[in-house]
Amino acid sequence: MCSPAIIEQVKKRISRRNALAALGGAGAAVSTGCLPASVSPKKTVRPSPKKKRWSSKPVEQVSFSRVVDLSHTLHPDFPAWFEAGKEVTTRGKRTFVPPAVVEVKPVFEWEHDKVNLNQVTYWEHVGTHMDAPAHFSEGSTVDEIPVEDLVLPLVVIDIKERAAKDPLALLNIEDVRSWEDEHGPIPERACVAMNSGWAKHVETPKFKSLDKKGKHRQPAFHIDAVEYLMEEREVVALGVDTFSFDNQHSPGSDVHYRWLGDERWGIENLNNLDDVPTKGATIVVGQPSVKGGSGGPNRTMALV
Amino acid sequence: MCSPAIIEQVKKRISRRNALAALGGAGAAVSTGCLPASVSPKKTVRPSPKKKRWSSKPVEQVSFSRVVDLSHTLHPDFPAWFEAGKEVTTRGKRTFVPPAVVEVKPVFEWEHDKVNLNQVTYWEHVGTHMDAPAHFSEGSTVDEIPVEDLVLPLVVIDIKERAAKDPLALLNIEDVRSWEDEHGPIPERACVAMNSGWAKHVETPKFKSLDKKGKHRQPAFHIDAVEYLMEEREVVALGVDTFSFDNQHSPGSDVHYRWLGDERWGIENLNNLDDVPTKGATIVVGQPSVKGGSGGPNRTMALV
Repeated sequence: MCSPAIIEQVKKRISRRNALAALGGAGAAVSTGCLPASVSPKKTVRPSPKKKRWSSKPVEQVSFSRVVDLSHTLHPDFPAWFEAGKEVTTRGKRTFVPPAVVEVKPVFEWEHDKVNLNQVTYWEHVGTHMDAPAHFSEGSTVDEIPVEDLVLPLVVIDIKERAAKDPLALLNIEDVRSWEDEHGPIPERACVAMNSGWAKHVETPKFKSLDKKGKHRQPAFHIDAVEYLMEEREVVALGVDTFSFDNQHSPGSDVHYRWLGDERWGIENLNNLDDVPTKGATIVVGQPSVKGGSGGPNRTMALV
Repeated sequence: MCSPAIIEQVKKRISRRNALAALGGAGAAVSTGCLPASVSPKKTVRPSPKKKRWSSKPVEQVSFSRVVDLSHTLHPDFPAWFEAGKEVTTRGKRTFVPPAVVEVKPVFEWEHDKVNLNQVTYWEHVGTHMDAPAHFSEGSTVDEIPVEDLVLPLVVIDIKERAAKDPLALLNIEDVRSWEDEHGPIPERACVAMNSGWAKHVETPKFKSLDKKGKHRQPAFHIDAVEYLMEEREVVALGVDTFSFDNQHSPGSDVHYRWLGDERWGIENLNNLDDVPTKGATIVVGQPSVKGGSGGPNRTMALV
């Protein structure tokens, strides 16, 4: 599976991470070759998570004549990582998951009040939504990311063929290199999105593809591809058309801890990636600026 | 105050509205000259509110090289139309307003869980937010507006000088005509935004400018200007840098009922309008697509 060139790159990254670990304990857990590492959260958190990544760099001249909706409609039955109505245990603490991923409860209604207004309640990471650095680190919250960093060149990498055969397919470093062979280096300040074809399954059991143990399965990013995008390219954001950057190949949420812990952000549950070109579109993430938010539902679009 | 040309236009609109009223009772209440009318909701609701306004027209070729954040950060003390923690009565029904306009309640916290995730709760019309047609009609909800109609040419009309002297200043038809005299007709499918200078007051009592009776005062749109934009121009959206399109000059919420009742939408609490040109920018409204939403917080930007 691993070409000599890839093995060489992985060795290079291992040596970088070991150097980092010596400096402050970050990145000490090392992935070995093409298999994902099981990285413990503590070790992958960088020593200074609030470093100033946000550049507010001017956007390069962009032109467009078409807008594509990259968001799903959010409704109470939208599939989420956490099972609605169940309990979740974190380090011995039990937490009750709400009965619906979003509750839209009428406060004023047309028939009586001649006005409609709802009270909306959700756990932040539902629907098409951002993962801010703060989701898996002590880093920036959604309101701390400037708009210049929410409008980025969009790169779409297609792994649909492999994902159709394997619900745990990974977008790996070979997919990135193969994309670059055809289209040139990933542009600076890009958002790199995985198109696994999963968006069309959103209203069916296939979206969660539960295994015999009841664990969900969906395509995700390989930690090595992610580290390449961090270390060899200046990528700002990751995107997936599934509900997580990680799957069962990275049970320690390696991708989340590495990427968000490095003051980068991501977006999950993207839609309609088939309707945008693999290169040349601009992603616009309309992320409500809720003070202290670790992420949350938004309207993401592509300008083509 | 009224020029003969304006009086002529108003007469024309009155005659149109009378014709409409004869057809189905809509628009029967007539504004007289330059003073706002007190229009009762029932009369201003159009007979067929779910008419197909949304065109999904292709966007005209747009270029930009700068992004401006037109949103405020939303936090629990953000000033809202409804007084947090108070009661509101609508047609005899008493409703308790939550103690904060947005509640961001930690579910998982870094210190214990090595993940941050909040439960977010709000009444929809807080912060920089959309008013969908459904807010004041039986029309479309936020999820029914296609993205093509969320990316529009932005026109900013400045009434700061008048608003500095009068917290109940109105953007009137003369302001629109004066803008057009200088810049040409309002572009098709525009969003027309009022810049009253109010955004800078958002963290001060000036934002609400309470009068002796405790009622808030802020600049708003004159119903005649709004009807001109509806009937003589093909404007899709209104914008204000205050928390309402209406003020004490239109206590029956004329602007809301007329505009939203005609399957158009609006955005309130815009920020940073001084940083965009009066003409030539493009507004992008990142409105989360919550099924059944009558509006709600979003991230609005301008592409310049």
